[in-house]
Amino acid sequence: MPETPTKPVLLTGASGNLGRMLARELAALGWTLRLTDIAPFPDPLPPRAGFTRMDLADGVGLLRLAEGCGAILHFGGISVEQPFGTVLGPNIQGLYHVYEAARREAARVIFASSNHSIGFHERPKGADGSPHGAESEKIDMDCAFRPDGYYGLSKAYGELMGRLYWDKHGVENVNLRIGSCFPEPTEARMLSTWLSYADLARLCVAAVTAPRSGHCVIWACSDNPASFWGQDHRDRIGWQPQDSAEAWRARVGHITSGNPVIERYQGGSYTAIGYSRGKPSARDAFALD
Amino acid sequence: MPETPTKPVLLTGASGNLGRMLARELAALGWTLRLTDIAPFPDPLPPRAGFTRMDLADGVGLLRLAEGCGAILHFGGISVEQPFGTVLGPNIQGLYHVYEAARREAARVIFASSNHSIGFHERPKGADGSPHGAESEKIDMDCAFRPDGYYGLSKAYGELMGRLYWDKHGVENVNLRIGSCFPEPTEARMLSTWLSYADLARLCVAAVTAPRSGHCVIWACSDNPASFWGQDHRDRIGWQPQDSAEAWRARVGHITSGNPVIERYQGGSYTAIGYSRGKPSARDAFALD
Amino acid sequence: MPETPTKPVLLTGASGNLGRMLARELAALGWTLRLTDIAPFPDPLPPRAGFTRMDLADGVGLLRLAEGCGAILHFGGISVEQPFGTVLGPNIQGLYHVYEAARREAARVIFASSNHSIGFHERPKGADGSPHGAESEKIDMDCAFRPDGYYGLSKAYGELMGRLYWDKHGVENVNLRIGSCFPEPTEARMLSTWLSYADLARLCVAAVTAPRSGHCVIWACSDNPASFWGQDHRDRIGWQPQDSAEAWRARVGHITSGNPVIERYQGGSYTAIGYSRGKPSARDAFALD
Amino acid sequence: MPETPTKPVLLTGASGNLGRMLARELAALGWTLRLTDIAPFPDPLPPRAGFTRMDLADGVGLLRLAEGCGAILHFGGISVEQPFGTVLGPNIQGLYHVYEAARREAARVIFASSNHSIGFHERPKGADGSPHGAESEKIDMDCAFRPDGYYGLSKAYGELMGRLYWDKHGVENVNLRIGSCFPEPTEARMLSTWLSYADLARLCVAAVTAPRSGHCVIWACSDNPASFWGQDHRDRIGWQPQDSAEAWRARVGHITSGNPVIERYQGGSYTAIGYSRGKPSARDAFALD
Amino acid sequence: MPETPTKPVLLTGASGNLGRMLARELAALGWTLRLTDIAPFPDPLPPRAGFTRMDLADGVGLLRLAEGCGAILHFGGISVEQPFGTVLGPNIQGLYHVYEAARREAARVIFASSNHSIGFHERPKGADGSPHGAESEKIDMDCAFRPDGYYGLSKAYGELMGRLYWDKHGVENVNLRIGSCFPEPTEARMLSTWLSYADLARLCVAAVTAPRSGHCVIWACSDNPASFWGQDHRDRIGWQPQDSAEAWRARVGHITSGNPVIERYQGGSYTAIGYSRGKPSARDAFALD
Amino acid sequence: MPETPTKPVLLTGASGNLGRMLARELAALGWTLRLTDIAPFPDPLPPRAGFTRMDLADGVGLLRLAEGCGAILHFGGISVEQPFGTVLGPNIQGLYHVYEAARREAARVIFASSNHSIGFHERPKGADGSPHGAESEKIDMDCAFRPDGYYGLSKAYGELMGRLYWDKHGVENVNLRIGSCFPEPTEARMLSTWLSYADLARLCVAAVTAPRSGHCVIWACSDNPASFWGQDHRDRIGWQPQDSAEAWRARVGHITSGNPVIERYQGGSYTAIGYSRGKPSARDAFALD
Repeated sequence: MPETPTKPVLLTGASGNLGRMLARELAALGWTLRLTDIAPFPDPLPPRAGFTRMDLADGVGLLRLAEGCGAILHFGGISVEQPFGTVLGPNIQGLYHVYEAARREAARVIFASSNHSIGFHERPKGADGSPHGAESEKIDMDCAFRPDGYYGLSKAYGELMGRLYWDKHGVENVNLRIGSCFPEPTEARMLSTWLSYADLARLCVAAVTAPRSGHCVIWACSDNPASFWGQDHRDRIGWQPQDSAEAWRARVGHITSGNPVIERYQGGSYTAIGYSRGKPSARDAFALD
Repeated sequence: MPETPTKPVLLTGASGNLGRMLARELAALGWTLRLTDIAPFPDPLPPRAGFTRMDLADGVGLLRLAEGCGAILHFGGISVEQPFGTVLGPNIQGLYHVYEAARREAARVIFASSNHSIGFHERPKGADGSPHGAESEKIDMDCAFRPDGYYGLSKAYGELMGRLYWDKHGVENVNLRIGSCFPEPTEARMLSTWLSYADLARLCVAAVTAPRSGHCVIWACSDNPASFWGQDHRDRIGWQPQDSAEAWRARVGHITSGNPVIERYQGGSYTAIGYSRGKPSARDAFALD
Repeated sequence: MPETPTKPVLLTGASGNLGRMLARELAALGWTLRLTDIAPFPDPLPPRAGFTRMDLADGVGLLRLAEGCGAILHFGGISVEQPFGTVLGPNIQGLYHVYEAARREAARVIFASSNHSIGFHERPKGADGSPHGAESEKIDMDCAFRPDGYYGLSKAYGELMGRLYWDKHGVENVNLRIGSCFPEPTEARMLSTWLSYADLARLCVAAVTAPRSGHCVIWACSDNPASFWGQDHRDRIGWQPQDSAEAWRARVGHITSGNPVIERYQGGSYTAIGYSRGKPSARDAFALD
Repeated sequence: MPETPTKPVLLTGASGNLGRMLARELAALGWTLRLTDIAPFPDPLPPRAGFTRMDLADGVGLLRLAEGCGAILHFGGISVEQPFGTVLGPNIQGLYHVYEAARREAARVIFASSNHSIGFHERPKGADGSPHGAESEKIDMDCAFRPDGYYGLSKAYGELMGRLYWDKHGVENVNLRIGSCFPEPTEARMLSTWLSYADLARLCVAAVTAPRSGHCVIWACSDNPASFWGQDHRDRIGWQPQDSAEAWRARVGHITSGNPVIERYQGGSYTAIGYSRGKPSARDAFALD
Repeated sequence: MPETPTKPVLLTGASGNLGRMLARELAALGWTLRLTDIAPFPDPLPPRAGFTRMDLADGVGLLRLAEGCGAILHFGGISVEQPFGTVLGPNIQGLYHVYEAARREAARVIFASSNHSIGFHERPKGADGSPHGAESEKIDMDCAFRPDGYYGLSKAYGELMGRLYWDKHGVENVNLRIGSCFPEPTEARMLSTWLSYADLARLCVAAVTAPRSGHCVIWACSDNPASFWGQDHRDRIGWQPQDSAEAWRARVGHITSGNPVIERYQGGSYTAIGYSRGKPSARDAFALD
Repeated sequence: MPETPTKPVLLTGASGNLGRMLARELAALGWTLRLTDIAPFPDPLPPRAGFTRMDLADGVGLLRLAEGCGAILHFGGISVEQPFGTVLGPNIQGLYHVYEAARREAARVIFASSNHSIGFHERPKGADGSPHGAESEKIDMDCAFRPDGYYGLSKAYGELMGRLYWDKHGVENVNLRIGSCFPEPTEARMLSTWLSYADLARLCVAAVTAPRSGHCVIWACSDNPASFWGQDHRDRIGWQPQDSAEAWRARVGHITSGNPVIERYQGGSYTAIGYSRGKPSARDAFALD
């Protein structure tokens, strides 16, 4: 089991579902946490944790909050598809504040990125229908970004901000392309994309405690046979998922949308929000991808 | 010679150096232009051109200005490295307004991207010292983004916004990764990166008039033997540069910075602004790239 | 019964009392609705309706929401007397966004104007005390604006914005000078000004489905014998109110304010908010009206 | 000659062409002036005058500046057609600050309104071609507002704000619907609309010094035989223009635009900015005005 | 008993704990109150009281609300330690609006200042441990400001704003350096700092009704033997506290923090928020105070 | 002569008159300077100096600019009496950013405070008329703040911010209450308040290079016999002024304002801006100071 970090860890977005789970789990490991969110923290404060209510727009305040921290788990900001104007402040400007804080503290950033940064990649053929996706069709971490909305675009931006801060300032960062992190899978797509709470908690522990990370990218889904995703940097931080969505196949494997856009692309329903490109089939005819 | 566009073309950033040159050259071809900038247009208005002074932050105004246009040459916004807060409004929010305008008009976007979106790629060995760079070391258009500052990061974001609008809405866009567009080369690096005014003007003509573009990426430099850059979508739009920086080698080939960061990376001096990663040699020792 | 609109209808202010009633009634007629409000929609979504939570200040967002709509029922914004600074954004800037959206879509605007845009007209003599107001004293739609507060002033501005967009851009608009739209009359003044929910719903149906409207103005009250108001454009859109406040006379006819300002002017209690002109009698002595 | 006001007079927009002329002329009459503008005052300060540089958006500051003043000549804000967003602050919010200041001081407002608040009224037949317009076709001050753009709309709003403050608070205000106030006429339309500097100065003197004004409206043009405008409140304040544009007929009577929209409507060129209603002839066919 | 004020009294922060208590108590004395707060007023409105919901940032609105008032009890704004950016608007800008309103109305300001404006003064020796603090160690009202955080700093700023408005404009103001105003003492420090609700209410009555106040400063704590504070202007306004914290000594006298910073300084726990100066003992060694 | 600082020194307000002089003088001593201002730096850059154009409102940017600095000479912000709203941002919010930067860097702040923070103290009797002011009437550094306007109030706030950061965080700061820093005296008051450029430069050198400063306050005027000011912390930092205004007595000793307010108070003309307290003599009669 990894050692407890010697410095406090800052967790943004602490009042959200994932934030609350992480606060509970990491505190249980004996970590010292600083929690922050724009919304009040609804649970009892875990031991050794403090909570500061703050807007990510308050850059000077965030820099102060991060003083002395060795890592920032950045789960704050908008976490679903929203109009551009709603995403801009928290996910673009707020991210910059997080990276400036990390640079000042020589802290590592663990960034809650998303599969929606690459959501317009097509799903591997047969990924839903067969227990095991074709390995050769999986995409690797160095695939092109294909954001499926303003949210996914902000996540791609965040990963590139991490690249910049690593290249220019040596700020380490671990970018978790989270699939679908819920208590359990609820539709066929999640047989590929599901990430269990326990696997996420273990991933965050690994990302914080790995001796070195550099700039790295992780496909944050459980050990799902039907996963869309292949090679990444998990060995560098020493993480392996232990759960699998496959056990839910009988219960949810038949739950699909019936929408050909949604079913074609990895990003699922987000790809269909405002979709106006014409039928996907028409696109195939269109030689330019 | 390509035909004159049947619809007006909107040119943002019209009052800048490149904007003024393009306004003059495109008007001379008989195009109907709508010019806009936050600064007044300093030249006499070319024939068939109108000028509207406007901030890219005025989204509803920009949408109105674009009504009826068939293409948007987006050269507006911040065009050099600046603090994050200065870049955010024009290059992130303003870009969104441009893409919403293009979606509404089914217009094509020609986006003045930059080599600084990939500026932290290393230069090919010998690119400066020999007349012909090693072909095998050139990077292609599908290389990873490696922004070298907040400016370059905004340009990577802009290319990905183009990707999103193409995937989701079928908005075509041509992303010009401009090297160094000046009247003539003034330092050794420009033997690789220089783009002549005439080549840029021809590139914009090709980008606007090509029957189809989809989402495409162009290395916007002249036909320089020492270029860092390889394969791109130029055939799709039918463009070939006609000028070359090589003729300036004797005059500028010895003008280098003496700064190992600057000389190592493609982005040149931008990579060194605020650079704090330690000596590049140290980085080699560091196994994580 | 009028035909169902072929295009979707956008309803702003959908989460308010009138908005919710209209959403329910119009959906029941088979209309396809897009609902929006700054507050969440508290009811179950009617069939064929979507809801988007949005601030009227987001102009680019509103234009997108209106895409493809044939009519905009604009019931959003501030709907009671408020300080100027509170009214300015939603009712002035927001209105502009609505009209720009309508211009883009060649859609018709049905604008929830108000009797408070003319509230400082005096009530006809005897309007309260007798079952039937003097016809000759009624004011027609082309009376001068006499706003009775910042709210009423914003409504006059809205009607004139409609006039401008009709004159300059041919955008049709129907301006409903709503009296008092509540489930039932609750004071003597409402014997003149009451508008039943059913009459409002029928009015909106007529306003949307009339073949032509141009810029028109409607006194939006029920068929009240004691009405203050005379000639308007109702024939143009084919609307006649079917309810009447008169049935409530016995119950509410004696409920007056005792405030001479309120009782003198059509706008009722709004005219007295902050009133500082001296006694109305003094005003009579003052020759300048 | 009217007496010098006993209290100082506040002049907004003092650094503009009309403001500078008024500052000079009124100071020459011995008036005590407080001048303000967002731009520096370019002339030497007249005797008994002070200048405060201020944005009309600073409401608390404007209220303080107006302390002790007996009249406000409000010539500040945007004075030409501009995008909505540019007009909103100075001409809507700024106007509110002016009226609150006037209410606090029981001061009279003299408001530089504009013919563009009614610019979409048609010109009287023959108004341009004959020395004397048909009297019966002239429009009176109580005509309907027909704003010809966002600027004109803000002026209509300003007149109605004046109406509200008179009705509710007894704040007197004189609304000058200025035609074309320039050193001399420069086109045929100005034979109808020209207002000489001297006539404007005399009008302001009359408006400030009249014993009573109430809410009144003045057609602010010189004694032009070809005027479009008829009855107003000039007798109430004791003003008669003394100059006439007619002397310029030979020089400018042939200078017209050739644009049927411009020539048809009183607002002239402003009516054509962004005009998209189709040909005016088509509009005649359209029964709904 | 003092007479009822002849003019209405404006109470800001009316929806807070102290505001609600004061509204209730002062209304019971027959005062006419205008209540305001950014939050709704949660209680039934007292007799002769009106409530206006408003942000202190709305300066023009606040000036209007204060019209005709003879005194302003300014209890609005942030009332606990908060990040600088949170304090700035309400407590700095809002305060300016209050003082401008008072100047306009020649009203007296009663300002809820705080002991935290001087919180970094050391506690008198033995103040906690003995029933009676050493008189000679008490600090007087003219002690130096020693703010213990951004909140306390804003209160010092407020007192100095009062000094300025008295010196320059003759605006009277009574600055209440409130200790700990709660229903009853809950820790040892409050044996020194407690202010009973009844004493606060009587203090506000005295401050409003005193014939003259000039700029004065009051240590607003009850008649506590262990008080830290000595001479002030209470005689000028005729106030004497009647309650005492001493009765709670047995119950709370042992409740201390164990933190040497907190226990050393008068401001108590606020002084320790973000404290980073090293151990207080080290400071003693440091000759510069 | 003091040693050159080992760390760079940040100078805000570098483009102002004092800033330019200091940049020149300090660079001539061999110091490494970082210059910043909202306006461009008009002079050639001194050796070892860099210039960054920035608004003090950009807190995250300022923190970055200060990285590695050992001292901040804070001469930026508004430096004359201005409306409150103009002063608020630069002098209140900007100051906070400076102090946060200093805390992060453990840097010392040298703050350009002003005599206007105490300007409503009366001048010593005879200070103007005799070559030597009465020593006993001079005020010491621990006198009460008596700001004479919004500018002076912001300077008092700045000194108290310094007090807070010293007490809570051990940030050292030297507060220079600058009198009148001009090339030479130009009126009688400056015989008391004048500070020569050379004395200011020496003062800044002393303030930066003193081994320890704590929180200290300096009367920043030259060695003027007619000075209003007495004891301060100059010994702590080892500074003595070397110039004197007395040599200008014959030339400017008779130049006074004739305004009794100006001549009575130390702040001079600033005390009279907007003064509305009645004649000072009346104030004497008023027992409450």
